[in-house]
Amino acid sequence: MTNEATEERVLETIRTRRELVNAAIDEELPLAEPERLYEASRYILEAGGKRLRPTVALLAGEAIADVDVESSDVEYRSFPAVSGDPVDLMRAAVSIEVIQSFTLIHDDIMDEDDLRRGVPAVHEAYDTSTAILAGDTLYSKAFEIMSETGADPKNGLEAMRLLASTCTRICEGQALDVAFERRAEVLPEEYLEMVELKTAVLYGAAASTPAVLLGADEEVVDALYRYGIDSGRAFQIQDDVLDLTVPSEDLGKQRGSDLVEGKETLITLHARQQGVDVDALVDAETPAEVTESEVESAVAALEESGSIDYAREKAEELTERSKRHLEVLPDNEARRRLAEIAEYLISRGY
Amino acid sequence: MTNEATEERVLETIRTRRELVNAAIDEELPLAEPERLYEASRYILEAGGKRLRPTVALLAGEAIADVDVESSDVEYRSFPAVSGDPVDLMRAAVSIEVIQSFTLIHDDIMDEDDLRRGVPAVHEAYDTSTAILAGDTLYSKAFEIMSETGADPKNGLEAMRLLASTCTRICEGQALDVAFERRAEVLPEEYLEMVELKTAVLYGAAASTPAVLLGADEEVVDALYRYGIDSGRAFQIQDDVLDLTVPSEDLGKQRGSDLVEGKETLITLHARQQGVDVDALVDAETPAEVTESEVESAVAALEESGSIDYAREKAEELTERSKRHLEVLPDNEARRRLAEIAEYLISRGY
Repeated sequence: MTNEATEERVLETIRTRRELVNAAIDEELPLAEPERLYEASRYILEAGGKRLRPTVALLAGEAIADVDVESSDVEYRSFPAVSGDPVDLMRAAVSIEVIQSFTLIHDDIMDEDDLRRGVPAVHEAYDTSTAILAGDTLYSKAFEIMSETGADPKNGLEAMRLLASTCTRICEGQALDVAFERRAEVLPEEYLEMVELKTAVLYGAAASTPAVLLGADEEVVDALYRYGIDSGRAFQIQDDVLDLTVPSEDLGKQRGSDLVEGKETLITLHARQQGVDVDALVDAETPAEVTESEVESAVAALEESGSIDYAREKAEELTERSKRHLEVLPDNEARRRLAEIAEYLISRGY
Repeated sequence: MTNEATEERVLETIRTRRELVNAAIDEELPLAEPERLYEASRYILEAGGKRLRPTVALLAGEAIADVDVESSDVEYRSFPAVSGDPVDLMRAAVSIEVIQSFTLIHDDIMDEDDLRRGVPAVHEAYDTSTAILAGDTLYSKAFEIMSETGADPKNGLEAMRLLASTCTRICEGQALDVAFERRAEVLPEEYLEMVELKTAVLYGAAASTPAVLLGADEEVVDALYRYGIDSGRAFQIQDDVLDLTVPSEDLGKQRGSDLVEGKETLITLHARQQGVDVDALVDAETPAEVTESEVESAVAALEESGSIDYAREKAEELTERSKRHLEVLPDNEARRRLAEIAEYLISRGY
C-alpha cells in the first residue's frame, strides 16, 4: 500500500469498528460471578488488540448486504439478512474475537510466552489453572454468543458448525506447530499448511460467517472463506518477515527473536533448501543475549539466499489472490475496504 | 436399591448402552491427523468410564418417544422426533461424553491429579501442553458432533446453545471449587451450588438435550433438566460419602483421601457447623501417609456429629426429587430405567 491516504483510510475503518466491537464485548461478556474467573477471561481482551477479525466480519456483512453502515441507518446489531429479517452481526464478530482471545491465552501457556499485548500473559498475571479455565470459559461464551444472532435457525446452526470445525482446525494447527519444533526437517508446504490451520482458518471464519448468517449464496460463502484464508496466510508470513526487518524499538521486542529462539518460518525453511546453515546464523541462545550486529549479518545472509524476498513475494501473491475472491461480491465501498485490509495485513510496519 | 434383581437390571441397562456408545465414539472421533493430538484426545475416553451421561441421554430419548430400543426396530442413530423426522440421538449422547472427557483432562491439570481411571492423567502420559490441547480439541469436536444430529435446525441450534451454556457453568463451578480451597469458610449451600455447576449441569444437559432435539414440549425439557440436576447433585454428594465409607481396596485409592487432602465436602462443612474441629481429624498430610486407624477414628467422629448421615439423607432426598420430575413422561420402561439409574447413582458401592 504505497498510498498514504489509503492507509489512513484503512486505519480509520479499523478504528471506528474497533470502538463498536469493544463496546459490544463489554455487553456480551460482562463481569459475572465468579468475578475472578471473568476478570481473567476479559484480561487479554481488555489489554488491547486491533480487532481485525471482527472488522473483517462486519465489512463482509456490509459488502454482502450492499450497505454502508457509516452512511446509512443500518446497524450491526440488527443487520438485514437476504430474507430481510434482522441478524445481530455484531454478536458474530464478537464471538470470533472471543475465540481468538481464548487461543492466545492457551497458546501462551503452551509456548511459555510470558508477555502478550505488552502486559503479562494470563498465566503470569494470575496462574496456569486460572488461565486454562479463563480460556475454557471464553471458548463456551463464544459459542453462546454465536448462538444468539437471531439468524434463521438453519443459518445459525451452520454458523455454529463452522465455528466448531474452525476451532478443531486451530487445535490441529497448534499441534503441528509444536510437533514441527521437534522434527529435523519441515517442508515449506508443510509450514504453510500449519499456518493455514493455526491462523488463517479464523480469518476464513470471520469473513464467511456473516455470509452464512445472512443467508448468502454458497458461492459467496466460499469466496469469502477463501479471501479470509489467503489474507490470513499472508498476514502470518508477513509477521515472520517483520520479525527480521523491523527495528526492535518499533517491533516492541528484540528484532530476530524467532531466529534466536530457533523458530522455523517460511524464511528459514526456504533458506535451508538453499543450503544456508540456518542454525549457525546466530550464536546467542536468547533474545536478551543477541547483538544487533549479529542480527544484521543473519538478515544479510537470508537476503542473500533470497529467502526474505521469497516470503515477501509469497505474502503478496496470497494477498492478490485473496482480493480476487472478492469479485463475487457487489462492487461497493465495503468490498473495497476488505481489499484494502488484505493489503494492510502485509503492508503494516509492525 | 435393596433389590438385587433391580440392581442387576440397571447394570445391564448401562452395559448394553455403553457398548453402543463406545462404538459410536470410535466413529465420531476417529484417529485423525495430527495423530499424537487425537491419540491424546481419545486417551481418557479409551481408558474406561461407565458412560452414565450418554446412557441417561439415550434413555431420555426412549422415554420421550415412548419406544424401547431393545425390543423394537428403532435405532439411536435414526430416532423418531415428535415430528416423525429422524434424529441421530447417539451423536448427542457422544457429544455429552466428549465434553465430560474434556473437563476431566483440564481438571486433572488444574487439580494436579496424576491418575484417572487407573491410568496416568493425560498431562502425565503426554505433557501439559498436549493435555491442554487435547481438551481444547475435544471441546470443539463435541460441538461439531452435536451440530450434526439432523434435528430440525431450530431444535439443533437450541441444543448447541444449551451445550455452550452448560460448558460455561461447568467452568464457573470449577472456578468456585478452586476459590473455596482458599476461603476460610464455605457454607453448605454454597458447596451445593458449586456441585450443581461443576457436576450436575452436565447431567441436566444429558437428560434434556434429547427432549430439545426431538422437539418435546418445554415442560418435558424442563422436567428432564431438573431430573438431571437433582440426580447429578445426589451423585456428587454420594461420591463424598463413598470416599469415607468404602474400603480402600474397593475404592481404588486410599479411603479418606479427600479428608487428608483437606478437600471440603458437604460432610466436612456440616461437621464444622456442628463444632467438629475438621482440620484436626487426621494428622497425615498425604493419602500415602495416613493409617487406616486414623481414618477409622475420623469417620467415627463424622458419624458422631451426624455429618455422614446428613449427606446420605441429602443425597436420598435429591434422588427422590429427581424421580418425581420424571412423572411428566409417559409411563414406560425407559422412564422406569431413568428412575433406577438415579437410585443407582447413590446406591453404587464405588
